[in-house]
Amino acid sequence: VPVISLLTDFGLSDAYVGIMKGVIFSKAPDAKIVDISHQISPHNLVQAAFLINSAYRYFPKGTVHVVVVDPSVGSDRTIIALKAAGFFFLAPDNGVLTPILEKESIDRSVKVENRRYFLETVSRTFHGRDIFAPVAAHLFSGGDINELGPSIPLNALGHLSLPKPEISRTGELIGIVIDIDRFGNLITNIDEGLIQEFCEKNGPELTVRIGQIRISGLRASYAGVSPGAALAIIGSRGTLEISINRGSAMESFSAVPGAMVKVSAANHRP
Amino acid sequence: VPVISLLTDFGLSDAYVGIMKGVIFSKAPDAKIVDISHQISPHNLVQAAFLINSAYRYFPKGTVHVVVVDPSVGSDRTIIALKAAGFFFLAPDNGVLTPILEKESIDRSVKVENRRYFLETVSRTFHGRDIFAPVAAHLFSGGDINELGPSIPLNALGHLSLPKPEISRTGELIGIVIDIDRFGNLITNIDEGLIQEFCEKNGPELTVRIGQIRISGLRASYAGVSPGAALAIIGSRGTLEISINRGSAMESFSAVPGAMVKVSAANHRP
Amino acid sequence: VPVISLLTDFGLSDAYVGIMKGVIFSKAPDAKIVDISHQISPHNLVQAAFLINSAYRYFPKGTVHVVVVDPSVGSDRTIIALKAAGFFFLAPDNGVLTPILEKESIDRSVKVENRRYFLETVSRTFHGRDIFAPVAAHLFSGGDINELGPSIPLNALGHLSLPKPEISRTGELIGIVIDIDRFGNLITNIDEGLIQEFCEKNGPELTVRIGQIRISGLRASYAGVSPGAALAIIGSRGTLEISINRGSAMESFSAVPGAMVKVSAANHRP
Repeated sequence: VPVISLLTDFGLSDAYVGIMKGVIFSKAPDAKIVDISHQISPHNLVQAAFLINSAYRYFPKGTVHVVVVDPSVGSDRTIIALKAAGFFFLAPDNGVLTPILEKESIDRSVKVENRRYFLETVSRTFHGRDIFAPVAAHLFSGGDINELGPSIPLNALGHLSLPKPEISRTGELIGIVIDIDRFGNLITNIDEGLIQEFCEKNGPELTVRIGQIRISGLRASYAGVSPGAALAIIGSRGTLEISINRGSAMESFSAVPGAMVKVSAANHRP
Repeated sequence: VPVISLLTDFGLSDAYVGIMKGVIFSKAPDAKIVDISHQISPHNLVQAAFLINSAYRYFPKGTVHVVVVDPSVGSDRTIIALKAAGFFFLAPDNGVLTPILEKESIDRSVKVENRRYFLETVSRTFHGRDIFAPVAAHLFSGGDINELGPSIPLNALGHLSLPKPEISRTGELIGIVIDIDRFGNLITNIDEGLIQEFCEKNGPELTVRIGQIRISGLRASYAGVSPGAALAIIGSRGTLEISINRGSAMESFSAVPGAMVKVSAANHRP
Repeated sequence: VPVISLLTDFGLSDAYVGIMKGVIFSKAPDAKIVDISHQISPHNLVQAAFLINSAYRYFPKGTVHVVVVDPSVGSDRTIIALKAAGFFFLAPDNGVLTPILEKESIDRSVKVENRRYFLETVSRTFHGRDIFAPVAAHLFSGGDINELGPSIPLNALGHLSLPKPEISRTGELIGIVIDIDRFGNLITNIDEGLIQEFCEKNGPELTVRIGQIRISGLRASYAGVSPGAALAIIGSRGTLEISINRGSAMESFSAVPGAMVKVSAANHRP
């Protein structure tokens, strides 16, 4: 039994999210709606791309994931609907679905343009209400994705160039902080598999560096170090995270998204 | 199939909203609940009035719109239930429903005082939990509005004097900023119809002014100007809005709610 | 018909809460989920304990109350499930359920360790997703609490020593501010029953003091004093609260959680 998930930069102070839900329930009375987040920084496509990537797998098959971060609303930018990995995705064609396009095999991709599934009046500034909500209700209710509009080839879709980790000339694994959560955990783009490969080549001991800070080894839990101490750990997204046990790595290290993180062999001389 | 919508100044840090929902589900197990917003500034009736006005139409018929912005809770202020436009409205009688009273034909208005539909114990400070939630559940479940209490005449109901746009002696259309959203869009009280009338009289070219800023013409979308440039547009509420493409008009113009906005003919000399 | 309530320190900016709900709906398609709050200060067990205490009673019988404030996630700390007062409670064994343990008769308490009810892969940092969500779905769906793991004796469970009001040598009733809500109301741990006992002994006139501020008597509503004036009132949790009519006691008195509040007979000389 599917749900509709919503990920936007609308915030929760305005009525925008509530209005979208009103429209969804008007069209699909049985809808179940889950908020992934509405606190994406205004127009931040990269943040939204990383967040939908961390979340979509954990929903029931058939879920309609709706991502409305849409700085070009009202222009001639396209809206796309994808079918992939047993889910539907609905978003502006601005690259915000890049992680899905990169990782999943796409069963179907269409241009959303059949006005029959829109609200009768479409505003110039709020397609979340006028297009995304009623189209999501259509897909939730088992409506055919092909009725939404013509097929669009994958190579015509917008992509973000998301930062990827790489190996430096001196053999270090170099990534960046892609997100910082409410606890101040620094979430990197270096995934577990890369770390494993690195250790197979360089031995199991490693050092993680951010700025002037050096952290030895990976821990199995926050409690693996004493309160207030820094640690590196494979976090819930399956990627390297830098944390402080019972504290905030963001505050302690004055870290910001984009900060460089280096993984080196323990005996590495930089 | 209706829902219950909630609009309050309770915020999301305290448990107040969750407790209201617990009570609603206790009384109406099939309830669907949509949050319009809980971030109304404490006791700000005007902000809540504008927000419910922007949202109520987009919900399924039969929806029970509950507005709890209630600085006089526990005093002898009345609680009212209205039936209008196919919806129910439940709110303190403090004017927060003024837009509904002004625009819709009211089919029924009653004083909510039948304690049979309240929680057994009614506190002095949290009628959201003790009265609004169980009464909303009653209306949601198809309960009769007339059982809630006696009819109350419309002219006995509280009204806010919401700011209305007007025509100045020099022929300008003068309104104000009534709301600023998360994107920094300045939402005015000047609706599309007024602008059309103005253009019929003064020609299609117009200038919008806020403080020292002059903006020429209306745009069809944010992308109608280059990133960082200001524009005037008819927003999703059907009223004039002032925006910056991919930026914040609030920040750029240091604008606050209440700021005056003037629409004049392009050739107007102030 | 029960619901699942969620109380966490996850905030609403990250995707953590949405992911938990995705997992719950994957396992229990009919779930109804209510957020109590996700704005607990990171790792603040005392704040979470007071909040769940203010809320749990108002939910339908059978409700599964899930509290995830879990600074020791990933260590060998236990997760517990309780059956008490017609509800289920699911939380880390860190004392966050102390008010339930102190006030309710506990029908059942088990150690949650049957991995059959967890997600297949359990991360080291996000048991909300991997354990709490699927186990809550199990209990919501009528699953047996005994299947989750072995019984654990009550005296083996963690407790917080929550601050209790006391009587001073000079006969004053001394409590503290345990919470401050969005309106700036100062919520104390002095409950109505204690005030009644105090008045039976010392007469009905009383004075409430916080810092240098003295407030005479209890009011029946905020409107019992003029706007801007301070008052003492029995709030919605059944405890003494200090408020400003249409203002913020927190701001006016620069009060913080933990501030001492004294109730004395009106003729008391300190």
